[in-house]
Amino acid sequence: MRIGIGDDCAVLAVEPGATLLATTDLLIEDVHFRRRYARPVDIGWKSLAVNLSDIASMGGRPRWVLVALACPDGTPPGEIEAFYEGFVSLARQHDVALVGGDTSSSPQGWVVNVTALGESTRPILRSTAREGDVIAVTGPLGRSAAGLAVLDRGAPAGVSADALADVTGAHLRPTPRVREGAWLGDAGDVTAMIDLSDGLATDLAHLAEESGVGARVEVARIPVNDSTRRIATALEADPLAWATGGGEDYELLLTCPASVITRLSEGLARAIGSARLHTIGRIVGAGEGVEFVDEGGRPVAIEAGFQHFRRRSARVAR
Amino acid sequence: MRIGIGDDCAVLAVEPGATLLATTDLLIEDVHFRRRYARPVDIGWKSLAVNLSDIASMGGRPRWVLVALACPDGTPPGEIEAFYEGFVSLARQHDVALVGGDTSSSPQGWVVNVTALGESTRPILRSTAREGDVIAVTGPLGRSAAGLAVLDRGAPAGVSADALADVTGAHLRPTPRVREGAWLGDAGDVTAMIDLSDGLATDLAHLAEESGVGARVEVARIPVNDSTRRIATALEADPLAWATGGGEDYELLLTCPASVITRLSEGLARAIGSARLHTIGRIVGAGEGVEFVDEGGRPVAIEAGFQHFRRRSARVAR
Repeated sequence: MRIGIGDDCAVLAVEPGATLLATTDLLIEDVHFRRRYARPVDIGWKSLAVNLSDIASMGGRPRWVLVALACPDGTPPGEIEAFYEGFVSLARQHDVALVGGDTSSSPQGWVVNVTALGESTRPILRSTAREGDVIAVTGPLGRSAAGLAVLDRGAPAGVSADALADVTGAHLRPTPRVREGAWLGDAGDVTAMIDLSDGLATDLAHLAEESGVGARVEVARIPVNDSTRRIATALEADPLAWATGGGEDYELLLTCPASVITRLSEGLARAIGSARLHTIGRIVGAGEGVEFVDEGGRPVAIEAGFQHFRRRSARVAR
Repeated sequence: MRIGIGDDCAVLAVEPGATLLATTDLLIEDVHFRRRYARPVDIGWKSLAVNLSDIASMGGRPRWVLVALACPDGTPPGEIEAFYEGFVSLARQHDVALVGGDTSSSPQGWVVNVTALGESTRPILRSTAREGDVIAVTGPLGRSAAGLAVLDRGAPAGVSADALADVTGAHLRPTPRVREGAWLGDAGDVTAMIDLSDGLATDLAHLAEESGVGARVEVARIPVNDSTRRIATALEADPLAWATGGGEDYELLLTCPASVITRLSEGLARAIGSARLHTIGRIVGAGEGVEFVDEGGRPVAIEAGFQHFRRRSARVAR
């Protein structure tokens, strides 16, 4: 960064040889978040997290961020400060500089827009998966949906406080896979990558469609953690539906040749202690579509079901 | 641009040697615009114009833009298309590529966020004006305020349709000084620059404060066009108050050594037929503050007055 907040624009020096990555997200109260669950500090964190996740999903490094916040007149200043605390605490973890932004008035509800800028020498697209590649994810799925279910319906009896905190934390303050994304970008063997914001079923369908391939996922291999399973049992919900349809897990989904998955997985674990890759399936021919199968290879019907409170948005195609 | 809309991020190639300029603006219905006046096509145009103006004010060239639009459910698709038509028609004039964005749902009113990215080899800041410099603007002031007065109160009798269209057009579809900004950035003699979004009095005070200088403006030299004067007369309003306090004119205000103003002004007019520089005053010592004076050098009280419907925003200073 050369000049930050205070002039008409931020003035930024992009690393020679790097390409610039840019992404923006508009988040509106009662569409993308509910203040009944999400405290200002959570909204600040998550509004940055979803954008850093987009940079990570290209194998890039986030460097700069601009934020615009609008709140109703009379919003206590402490709430606005808490928003920025949440935002900046995540930015600091990843050396991301806040280089622009303003706070203005909203006639109703909170409105947040975040633009994240990053760098990459070799961006990984979602449109370049190849038949025969394996499909892997960076962590357990369905946690965020489990957390939302708890926030929505109340904590079920007989589930530990740790399990409740694990899933509500995943929903309110998701951890974007920033270091993992950058490492995978540098590793060079990843053929395609996307972040899981809309849910495995939807995001994998995007990747397959844009790559002109099909995909086959073994549902038994989809990682679902104990907290999520326990809460699903207590709420009589289907953890597989959460894992495939829930969305907002912000894990990375990647494809790579089968010959390199072990090396990638071990290298990632060495570089980032907590990081793991979970192989969940294979890229197949376009004619086969996107299919979820059981251990016997039989198709499993996946509820795209969990639509409640999903981001309703459509990309502009023009 | 390398990869546009359709992946998690836009992938952009910044010109080697250039620095990146980034700016973002969140515009909310009934805070920053009113749909009673502004048609969707106008909102699209203006939301881009205000961001291009920020790039121009640094002496840069806008290259890419990301937009996020949220509208209430049930908004006619034709209105959303009209928004993008207005947006894209201005983007095309300046070879700016729309590289990302989405449309989502809003519980109330339209919400627009635009992020503009540009390039500059030598950005012009607002904090580098020097004592003795002249102060100049790129065009007439107060037009936008006159336009807003007409839209607010209705067209006064006895004013020509052309004059009405001139000022309402200035308010609803302002012309950002994109070519002028880039030319002035390349010219090399401009010491400081800012765009007039909040009004001459406010924006000049920002420039003076951040440069650690004072400023003296001769009110008789502030350019105010005939349309604005006629409408002020018809509405019994003060055109000087519009020109100094009205805001949203999106002309550029610049400072440069007195020795180069003629050369700059003539060079700009040669390069861009319609462009002119109007000298309105001088940068003075910090102790003298920012003063508006009459032809005899006597201080003139300037109403910061025209606050109605001004953008209410405060820059985040952290």
